[in-house]
Amino acid sequence: MTVYNIALIGFGGVNRALAGLIATKNPQWERQLGFQLNIVAVSDLYLGSVISPNGLDPRMLTEANFTKGGFGQLSGGSSEADNETVIKLAPADIVVEATFTNPKDGEPAVSHCRWALQAGKHVVTTNKGPVALAAQELKALAKSRGVRFEYEGAVMSGTPVMRLADKTLAGAEMKGFEGILNGTSNFVLGRMEGGLDFSSAVKEAQALGYAEADPTADVEGHDVRLKVVILANELLGANLKPEDVTCEGISRLSPHDIETAAKENCRWKLIGSAARGVDGIVVGSVAPKRLALEHPLAGVGGATNAVSLNTELLGSVTITGPGAGRVETAYALLSDIVAIHSAQPSKDAKEAA
Amino acid sequence: MTVYNIALIGFGGVNRALAGLIATKNPQWERQLGFQLNIVAVSDLYLGSVISPNGLDPRMLTEANFTKGGFGQLSGGSSEADNETVIKLAPADIVVEATFTNPKDGEPAVSHCRWALQAGKHVVTTNKGPVALAAQELKALAKSRGVRFEYEGAVMSGTPVMRLADKTLAGAEMKGFEGILNGTSNFVLGRMEGGLDFSSAVKEAQALGYAEADPTADVEGHDVRLKVVILANELLGANLKPEDVTCEGISRLSPHDIETAAKENCRWKLIGSAARGVDGIVVGSVAPKRLALEHPLAGVGGATNAVSLNTELLGSVTITGPGAGRVETAYALLSDIVAIHSAQPSKDAKEAA
Repeated sequence: MTVYNIALIGFGGVNRALAGLIATKNPQWERQLGFQLNIVAVSDLYLGSVISPNGLDPRMLTEANFTKGGFGQLSGGSSEADNETVIKLAPADIVVEATFTNPKDGEPAVSHCRWALQAGKHVVTTNKGPVALAAQELKALAKSRGVRFEYEGAVMSGTPVMRLADKTLAGAEMKGFEGILNGTSNFVLGRMEGGLDFSSAVKEAQALGYAEADPTADVEGHDVRLKVVILANELLGANLKPEDVTCEGISRLSPHDIETAAKENCRWKLIGSAARGVDGIVVGSVAPKRLALEHPLAGVGGATNAVSLNTELLGSVTITGPGAGRVETAYALLSDIVAIHSAQPSKDAKEAA
Repeated sequence: MTVYNIALIGFGGVNRALAGLIATKNPQWERQLGFQLNIVAVSDLYLGSVISPNGLDPRMLTEANFTKGGFGQLSGGSSEADNETVIKLAPADIVVEATFTNPKDGEPAVSHCRWALQAGKHVVTTNKGPVALAAQELKALAKSRGVRFEYEGAVMSGTPVMRLADKTLAGAEMKGFEGILNGTSNFVLGRMEGGLDFSSAVKEAQALGYAEADPTADVEGHDVRLKVVILANELLGANLKPEDVTCEGISRLSPHDIETAAKENCRWKLIGSAARGVDGIVVGSVAPKRLALEHPLAGVGGATNAVSLNTELLGSVTITGPGAGRVETAYALLSDIVAIHSAQPSKDAKEAA
């Protein structure tokens, strides 16, 4: 039996959901996927950190109502979040990075990933920061250490857009993509179609927990911009930085704009896109676009995300699915671990070792 | 360099399109995919058959206007389509089966696949017949001979639904699916929404070449039924036969039905679906269904196909793309060959051999 020891960096909704899955699904995963997961360390800014080489009970982790610094009560625990020590010293095969996204320099998540890879540990993450801002460095580092850096969840939560392109569309010749990549702004646009003005729609999104207190990153397109960078670099072999991608959000759309579009059988959507030009250069952008109702992205509503991949041999292929959600995003981490498991040169050798 | 020798069984639109791609893309495939393709045999009911161990010029094959029995003029050729000899004796690594679909017993395509696999040759096919009616036997045979039986194109042309489930959604726990799997009936429904009655819409589809002279298989759901069998067996581990799947087409829908649905913000679609019940038994069906316009399949128009996969951990994930087309379907064959190439235990060993 293969058991992967994992260290959870950040213990918010996503890693907590992953622990919850581990608590119930290990036997099933062993049968169906060929491995089990064992949590040997957790570190969290609020709760502190804990290293337990034999493994922590995932049910205890999810069900105990730890207060600030609460991991200090556990054997091997500390009330301080010593991410660096946990990442470097915990006996983990895989480090699961799910801290907050810093859109400026990706820190501290970039350092988390770097420490783990340098220590010869695989990294899986749902954090856009390190992927958008440091993927080249981290992928090269992973390669040099013979480990994997996997990040399917950084763009569309568990909906597999990067692996769709890589594993199932090889040879189709990717020319570009356009997508609805932010559920909050998509929800706000939907409510504006329902008659609200922009600020009322944002307030409703905040009241429902879809939008943060400061909704700027979502409604001004900054979140989508990071995702465009990730997809352009991954799918089109570009080397874009966020500042290379033009970015306009939805805050300047008026009820009149929405209404006029509806009268003409169109609908505004915040579209993140990139395409390779005839000169071979990949250009990316984020902007509200008026789509005809027949457009494959026009019907994507609410918090759902979708990306249309434009290929030479197949034309347009669109994948639509959840763009957020704790369990959905935890699934992205599981899918990354499945990818790591599949890529093992010889599982038998590993098991014997 | 890896070169796969291939034998084309059937030389209609799809295999002709594959030959056309080979004529121009081999150098690019070598760089990007790691292999080239070399056509060493072709057999076609109308044109005859030819075996050429050193390879046939794909440009000649696609551009020469062969008449009936025309392959007899070629070196190593015969005016008769001797599929069995070609499959068994041509020095092919991969047999590409693209003859017509026989919905009763899958023959002669099942025999084509069986002969190839028995001879230790990989099989790739876009033919629904052998996959819907004999997949278990053929998969077991392939396994016993250490070769692959690949058939992504049997359901949605080049749109990768089976590999999406298998390669990118492992562990998401598939519970069922529903799809728009027949472009002809979907086109007819669209024209009925435009005001035509059923038979006028079918006539228009025939005039445009979308529907065959006998449109029964498309509009009565028989084509979709075979696809439901394939997907249910592949995605849900079922063992359905076509007669296990209830089947109703769209011919009984009246303009009144269409109009009433539109008034209530709904739309009729021919839906192929299957789901695992609480008893663990997988039940499949084909039937026209009234979908609310917000339903992820409601906006799928014309010849486009789509499948929504219902999963435990991710909820609904939908893939939308071409469901037909010569180049699109030829791409499915290429994607199957990419899968064969990726599964080679050691390419270096193969190249050295």
